[in-house]
Amino acid sequence: MNKWITESGAGFGVTIETEELLYSAQSPFQKIEIYRTSNLGRMLVLDGVIQLTEFDEFAYQEMLAHVPAFAHPEPRSALIIGGGDGGVARELAKHPSIETIDLCEIDGMVVAAARKYLPFIACGFDDPRVRVHIGDGAEFVADRKAAYDLVIVDSSDPIGPNESLFNDDFYRRVKRALKPGGIAAAQAESYYLYPQVATRLTGIFQRVFGNTAYSGMLVPSYPGGTIGACVAADDGRDVRRPARRPAPGTALKYYTPAVHEASFVLPVFAEKLFEEAKK
Amino acid sequence: MNKWITESGAGFGVTIETEELLYSAQSPFQKIEIYRTSNLGRMLVLDGVIQLTEFDEFAYQEMLAHVPAFAHPEPRSALIIGGGDGGVARELAKHPSIETIDLCEIDGMVVAAARKYLPFIACGFDDPRVRVHIGDGAEFVADRKAAYDLVIVDSSDPIGPNESLFNDDFYRRVKRALKPGGIAAAQAESYYLYPQVATRLTGIFQRVFGNTAYSGMLVPSYPGGTIGACVAADDGRDVRRPARRPAPGTALKYYTPAVHEASFVLPVFAEKLFEEAKK
Repeated sequence: MNKWITESGAGFGVTIETEELLYSAQSPFQKIEIYRTSNLGRMLVLDGVIQLTEFDEFAYQEMLAHVPAFAHPEPRSALIIGGGDGGVARELAKHPSIETIDLCEIDGMVVAAARKYLPFIACGFDDPRVRVHIGDGAEFVADRKAAYDLVIVDSSDPIGPNESLFNDDFYRRVKRALKPGGIAAAQAESYYLYPQVATRLTGIFQRVFGNTAYSGMLVPSYPGGTIGACVAADDGRDVRRPARRPAPGTALKYYTPAVHEASFVLPVFAEKLFEEAKK
Repeated sequence: MNKWITESGAGFGVTIETEELLYSAQSPFQKIEIYRTSNLGRMLVLDGVIQLTEFDEFAYQEMLAHVPAFAHPEPRSALIIGGGDGGVARELAKHPSIETIDLCEIDGMVVAAARKYLPFIACGFDDPRVRVHIGDGAEFVADRKAAYDLVIVDSSDPIGPNESLFNDDFYRRVKRALKPGGIAAAQAESYYLYPQVATRLTGIFQRVFGNTAYSGMLVPSYPGGTIGACVAADDGRDVRRPARRPAPGTALKYYTPAVHEASFVLPVFAEKLFEEAKK
């Protein structure tokens, strides 16, 4: 019998019909479940929180990867912290200028499960430029100085295994790991449903980088249907304008230079929230 | 005990926690329910479909009203078809140039229930420029020739009492009801979850008006978190650019001229869907 998986909090939730539980395991960090859904393809759930569905993961992965990457004139090196499903790596690999992609995921069982059950996204690991490191991203990045043009934090919610990624100290390490002119981006939740998370991360970025902007993206399978990223440039360059365009023939289902710019245009109430958070 | 109200279709849904059913009645057209929710204020549900919550209704009402209204240089007369909660009327009344707002809602019981239980939105009926007509919008508009600068179709889904509003014939009547240079807009569903509805309405607009564009808006309490409107100008003017700015002091929580323009910027896959629908 089909089972509806519901993710809810604060009186609001999303519910998705599943037909089969393909994988379930308790890792040292979290409960990992992969389902076959009725209409959204395969779905990854960590500790009961929907991480992605095959139906709409392209929106999140493209925007989290390409907004910072196209804001940089010529990225050669990138670090992904988290991103154990492989999606951000898959997207970054579409940039011919990028020579190395380090990925540091704390939970090796997520990587293994994605490789086995989510090949449409774990194909990101197959690119020879991608090097996977299993460990704590906060420790990994501490050892890197002026090493990356891009650092992308693709974490789940700021509770559980990702607590160490939501503070000034971690982002100071990220800043030190950036080459001059480098760009940092991090998943920043929905300003509608989780304004306290979105504004807290905005405050951290503003203090550490001296500038930041919130890029929104539309992902129906997340509660509220939207999520976003804080993006900041090490040299204060305006990340809201792309520095270059996708090469002809780049396979993109969501990102365009116009979408890049429009993603930073926010409703009045959200602008006010973020202005307040930057003070 | 609290009850979760779930709206789902095609294996995906939204679920909202309610604390009290304030009103429930079967009208000649549909089942009307009004709840007090745990965290989203009051909520209107018609035939099991979430119409609005107090928490985020401003996003929908502002965008459906102000995108067409600000695309017009000086609207004086407006017709709302549907909109029985009063929200679009409330927003149009913020335009000082508008002298008359006709509203034709098929279900008088929705208007009465909104007046009693949803005063934050039914306050739209209190403006002396608003005239409420209870009846079939398709018949009402057939009697009007070159009468309105704006015609806004604020209908629920294209099943049930609104079936008569989803065809070429109805929109030809809407076009005839427009003054020269007038603008039409209609709720057009989500291109993510209901692409068949969004593209069908786009096709109708393209055939009748010879041009149209889809304006997206973020409304977390709808499944998928996004919805949109088809907008078209009788004279083919580009509705994606506002013709004027809000007067200083206009109370807006969502709309800005930048949001107006950004709302028409769509992900690659959506652009392709709509291009195909216009052929």
